[in-house]
Amino acid sequence: MPDFKSIGEFGFIDHIATHPTPKHVLCGIGDDCAVIAQSDTQVRLVTTDMMVERVHFLTDTPPEGLGHKLLAVNISDIAAMGGTPTDAVISLAVPANHDAGYLERLYNGLYACADRFNVAIVGGDTTRSHNQLVLNISLTGQMNCNHVCYRSGAQIGDLIYVSGTLGDASGGLSLIQDQIEMDQTDRTHLLRKFHRPEPRLELGQTLAATDAITAMMDVSDGVASDLRHICQRSEVSASLQASAIPLSDAFLNFCQKTKKDAIQLALSGGEDYELLFAIKPDRAKEIESLVQKSSAPKITCIGQITEGKDAIQITHEDNSRSPLTVTGYDHFKSTP
Amino acid sequence: MPDFKSIGEFGFIDHIATHPTPKHVLCGIGDDCAVIAQSDTQVRLVTTDMMVERVHFLTDTPPEGLGHKLLAVNISDIAAMGGTPTDAVISLAVPANHDAGYLERLYNGLYACADRFNVAIVGGDTTRSHNQLVLNISLTGQMNCNHVCYRSGAQIGDLIYVSGTLGDASGGLSLIQDQIEMDQTDRTHLLRKFHRPEPRLELGQTLAATDAITAMMDVSDGVASDLRHICQRSEVSASLQASAIPLSDAFLNFCQKTKKDAIQLALSGGEDYELLFAIKPDRAKEIESLVQKSSAPKITCIGQITEGKDAIQITHEDNSRSPLTVTGYDHFKSTP
Repeated sequence: MPDFKSIGEFGFIDHIATHPTPKHVLCGIGDDCAVIAQSDTQVRLVTTDMMVERVHFLTDTPPEGLGHKLLAVNISDIAAMGGTPTDAVISLAVPANHDAGYLERLYNGLYACADRFNVAIVGGDTTRSHNQLVLNISLTGQMNCNHVCYRSGAQIGDLIYVSGTLGDASGGLSLIQDQIEMDQTDRTHLLRKFHRPEPRLELGQTLAATDAITAMMDVSDGVASDLRHICQRSEVSASLQASAIPLSDAFLNFCQKTKKDAIQLALSGGEDYELLFAIKPDRAKEIESLVQKSSAPKITCIGQITEGKDAIQITHEDNSRSPLTVTGYDHFKSTP
Repeated sequence: MPDFKSIGEFGFIDHIATHPTPKHVLCGIGDDCAVIAQSDTQVRLVTTDMMVERVHFLTDTPPEGLGHKLLAVNISDIAAMGGTPTDAVISLAVPANHDAGYLERLYNGLYACADRFNVAIVGGDTTRSHNQLVLNISLTGQMNCNHVCYRSGAQIGDLIYVSGTLGDASGGLSLIQDQIEMDQTDRTHLLRKFHRPEPRLELGQTLAATDAITAMMDVSDGVASDLRHICQRSEVSASLQASAIPLSDAFLNFCQKTKKDAIQLALSGGEDYELLFAIKPDRAKEIESLVQKSSAPKITCIGQITEGKDAIQITHEDNSRSPLTVTGYDHFKSTP
């Protein structure tokens, strides 16, 4: 049997996902949340995330932001199904000499996010670690069973949309890792998108209620990787327009300064926590106008679902076309 | 602010438990499970546990047993409320060079336990760790809202019972840690109780349905510590009979061989995962007979709830009495 690095995170998940689940589990491993039948009309959603010091966050990461992010990225998973988060349990493994004040500030950030999104923190486990802080959250949500947006329903001809702008979080991460100097406004924008992702909860709920969304997920590993999941689960391909990818001024300034390919970084960088979704083509204008009237962020059409098996083509700004070869982030394959 | 070791696990939990929770959270932090109102008749139970390599298990711990134990100890929490487990999510943080075969065997143990107790593994998160394997489980259960057994209902005069025998798991742990030689039958018994705890699910459900149980929890940190939780939450004291503490022959042989005080170790040793509960005195005989007719393990009366505030007295075998000074396990306070 190989070691973990060589099979990777997704290889292992594919392996364990073969175990059968009972009928009331409407969706197990393989979507943003597990979906469990609760009554004739309601489903329960469950999602979980583990964050490890020096893998997902640095030892000097501001703890309030870390507490916010731990919960926010899981609310983002609930948003990606169209649901409403309800309650969470938190586990901590803490080195014995860890500053308890840091953890109190982490909980302050967690509770501030929980109170804003009406999530009750109902319990947890606190235990000892040797030399890394490890955090885990399991978040439960609920929604009407008829409105659940899976990754698997995209149809040929559907239009592919994304909310907000892409790449900002990876710009923020790069600012920290590579110690790049930038204009204060741009810097604040990029760091905020990295440290304080805003789950698109209202947008997810608005979209799900229209019944015009055929597939949805959140952008956690980068569109290049995440759109591939939609294509695989829906058994289709996709075509993207590079010129349509929504980029912030701050991110464009960052790419100019660092001489990075903006489109490539925007599609491959993780942790944007925007929503990526497919709309039935005849409903697209109506949905755009519905979102515009809400307080949700702008949505942008970036491409279309096409016939085929899990291939993504990109039309570049010079009108040339090529397969999208950039991939997203795999914690095992991407790190030494 | 002090470091984590000096305030300890329970100090930190007390601190974070002060945040208010909404009304549909019937019980948050402070019991075996969180209890959340689900409908007019049903509640949802949630419990979570994190297990860290070289804190909760050794690097060479057999993985099938570890997978079993991760789920079994959480089923034990559901059993302690009287509920039925339904589904779980699992998070893993794995060093990149970790043997994937070990994790496959861990999942085999987990799935074997899940299938036996009708628990669906519905999702999870797999990520990278630096040098420790970290496992987290969040288990959901359900039950009728009228039968939930909290820790907080014990009344003066109630009889205190425990299932099975106490101390076996700490005997098993000591066999591993101190490399003690013992007769094969005794050794197998103690190691099995440590590696493969059996959640008392049927017993918990049978007891909860009688409405004669005023408080219940599972024995995870040792009766000395766990009974104190019942006393604190119920605002009572307790009196124990040393001669009544149920001990296995294997554990008695182990204590004789290692010259350990059997009663002290049985009350302070953790991880027995038996049920500890208080019965209304006029219902005790009926409940004993009900359990005897089931396939659940024997239950034994070990003492009585008394007036007072969170003091536990023990009557020794020579009829002398003293306050119970031994305590249970705190991962932060008990380790260097």
